[in-house]
Amino acid sequence: MEFLLDIAVLLISAKLLGEVAERLRLPELLGAIAAGFLLGPVLGLVDVQNVVRFGQMGLILLLFIAGFREVRVEEIMRNKKSSVLAGTLGALVPLVAGYFLGTYFGFSVITSLFIGSALAASSISISLGSFIEAGRLNTRVGRTVLGSSVVDDVLGLFILAVIVAVATTGSMPSVEVFSGIFFGILLFALVFLASIFLFPLLVRFSNKFKADQAQFSVTMVLVIMLALLAEKFGLSTVLGAFLAGVILSRVPQLATRSFLEKVDVVSEGIFVPLFFAWVGLQIALDAGAITLFTLALIVVALVGKLVGCYVAGALSGFTHVESLALGVGMIPRGEVALVILMLGAKAGVVSSSLFSSFLLLILVSIFLTPVLLAPLLRGKLPK
Amino acid sequence: MEFLLDIAVLLISAKLLGEVAERLRLPELLGAIAAGFLLGPVLGLVDVQNVVRFGQMGLILLLFIAGFREVRVEEIMRNKKSSVLAGTLGALVPLVAGYFLGTYFGFSVITSLFIGSALAASSISISLGSFIEAGRLNTRVGRTVLGSSVVDDVLGLFILAVIVAVATTGSMPSVEVFSGIFFGILLFALVFLASIFLFPLLVRFSNKFKADQAQFSVTMVLVIMLALLAEKFGLSTVLGAFLAGVILSRVPQLATRSFLEKVDVVSEGIFVPLFFAWVGLQIALDAGAITLFTLALIVVALVGKLVGCYVAGALSGFTHVESLALGVGMIPRGEVALVILMLGAKAGVVSSSLFSSFLLLILVSIFLTPVLLAPLLRGKLPK
Repeated sequence: MEFLLDIAVLLISAKLLGEVAERLRLPELLGAIAAGFLLGPVLGLVDVQNVVRFGQMGLILLLFIAGFREVRVEEIMRNKKSSVLAGTLGALVPLVAGYFLGTYFGFSVITSLFIGSALAASSISISLGSFIEAGRLNTRVGRTVLGSSVVDDVLGLFILAVIVAVATTGSMPSVEVFSGIFFGILLFALVFLASIFLFPLLVRFSNKFKADQAQFSVTMVLVIMLALLAEKFGLSTVLGAFLAGVILSRVPQLATRSFLEKVDVVSEGIFVPLFFAWVGLQIALDAGAITLFTLALIVVALVGKLVGCYVAGALSGFTHVESLALGVGMIPRGEVALVILMLGAKAGVVSSSLFSSFLLLILVSIFLTPVLLAPLLRGKLPK
Repeated sequence: MEFLLDIAVLLISAKLLGEVAERLRLPELLGAIAAGFLLGPVLGLVDVQNVVRFGQMGLILLLFIAGFREVRVEEIMRNKKSSVLAGTLGALVPLVAGYFLGTYFGFSVITSLFIGSALAASSISISLGSFIEAGRLNTRVGRTVLGSSVVDDVLGLFILAVIVAVATTGSMPSVEVFSGIFFGILLFALVFLASIFLFPLLVRFSNKFKADQAQFSVTMVLVIMLALLAEKFGLSTVLGAFLAGVILSRVPQLATRSFLEKVDVVSEGIFVPLFFAWVGLQIALDAGAITLFTLALIVVALVGKLVGCYVAGALSGFTHVESLALGVGMIPRGEVALVILMLGAKAGVVSSSLFSSFLLLILVSIFLTPVLLAPLLRGKLPK
């Protein structure tokens, strides 16, 4: 039962530091991340293995809530132009800038390609948390951050296929690889459409159960299943959980205050703080990684994303504050960057010191994003 | 994220089979146990490692609810005579009967002592679940089942100390061992008294938090901490979680319908079904264990407990149905028996085939108890 001590200590620390953050007008999630960072990498009191499952459940719930509570399907589609623009520009600018940064610092062409690719994809769970907390997800910039992260994801799949093929075979990937990716996306689209019909039926069925809280259990299971199916077809769990939320928010039986309150207590009361604490736990401390290259990498990663998305925002008719919020919202890097680098390491073209530089970049982006976003989200934003 | 598939599959199966059980007028928990048993030992689809943490959290929550929702301190104390009687007689009768069973089947004196001791302690989470589901925990027999399990626990500690000392050193344990156990119980009693003063203060403090659901998180942390402290001082986590519920039920800020609903969704909607499914997952199938000795062991275990507790009930002025319910409620054996046997195996006096016999006994007691209890709890029972 020792793992429960880690859970308890993390949960209480996350809530306490979250409270401190909130009083400083910073997002609560920053406090939770700091709690994980302090108890894990800094003090070494908590074992990350004891929290990983609760943390992953928290990530799923966070995205489910985002879809359920904040966004309607029609509304996401209203911002598809800005989403595609920001997703594309926001990926391409850091990709190109990262490539040139690599060659400038003397890395090989293929290593530089890995550096660029790893900078392309955002990890928006941190900024999404800030948007949700501030009640600003359902604004046009909030929906664009969401939408472009989906575009980002799909683009990332293709970039990854290309560069892994180049690194391992020295040539472009075959047509089959691309059609495989397309096929995965297509299959998931079918699953999504089927879910739109099936989910309401299953929820209505569970409503007839006498078993205690059966409807809530069934809802949770549907969310997990769609998240896992998204992953199975090459997309991210995060996208699946989000879409499950969007679908379920249209089910009449669930559109009640009491269901919302249930979701809130399970997520905010237990799993979501543990998710952010888990993010903090995973941060790797490596003072040796603070080199001139690392600093340049951080600048390129931040400025590249900011510029790409700011331009996309301006082109979509966003205000200065909105375009800034869009740019900052897309800054965080995370698991996608690490996956790309790991594949590079496997192909023998990414060194462990390059890895450490990226870990530092992730650390900086995780702590910086909520701090920069807080003032931008304070005022009113166009719906 | 594969573990989430196991969680989802177990949760939905537990709710579905729970529903089936309920329609057959059996407790829902039997369906959840059957779900775990089918998906794990029988079909091999689910990995128990992926569920253990959620299951343990469920056990803590189950006992917390029992303490919070069902029982008042004053009321437990009203039944202390019957609790002590049933705890003592219900431990001694199977202990003695198990010892003679062992010697009759040709086991050594020390092995027979281990057999008897392993039969002494009940594992009441299964019967407790039946009492809670039927709304009968707050009856004099319900409270006696609870109270005698505490007595049982304390007695078990002493029996364990004696027999481990005899097995390893060949003599009775030293005074230090006994005073160590006494000291642990004393320390936990102090922690308990301190909690009565501290918990309301901490809950009131958390009420001032702006962080979302902070009060709920703090409550969960307090429950986990008292459970872990109980374990630390040699008692069971289950007792700590139960007492945390009793203490917290007296805190005015928590005595609301909305808090109860929160606890219910977290426990019944997620963790408690996973706890019972986890119980089912852990059941070991070993057809080779079905021997004459195993059958005799099961009869002795069931009848011994039933007789000991029935007599205790009758001596306390309970009706026939109440005394039967008390006896059946104390039948389940579980983790305590396994711990005792493991210590015996370590000392080289418990064989693996003896272990298998006990696993079969646990299996039978887990499935039989709710089935036998259901009709006994259907009618009205004296408060």
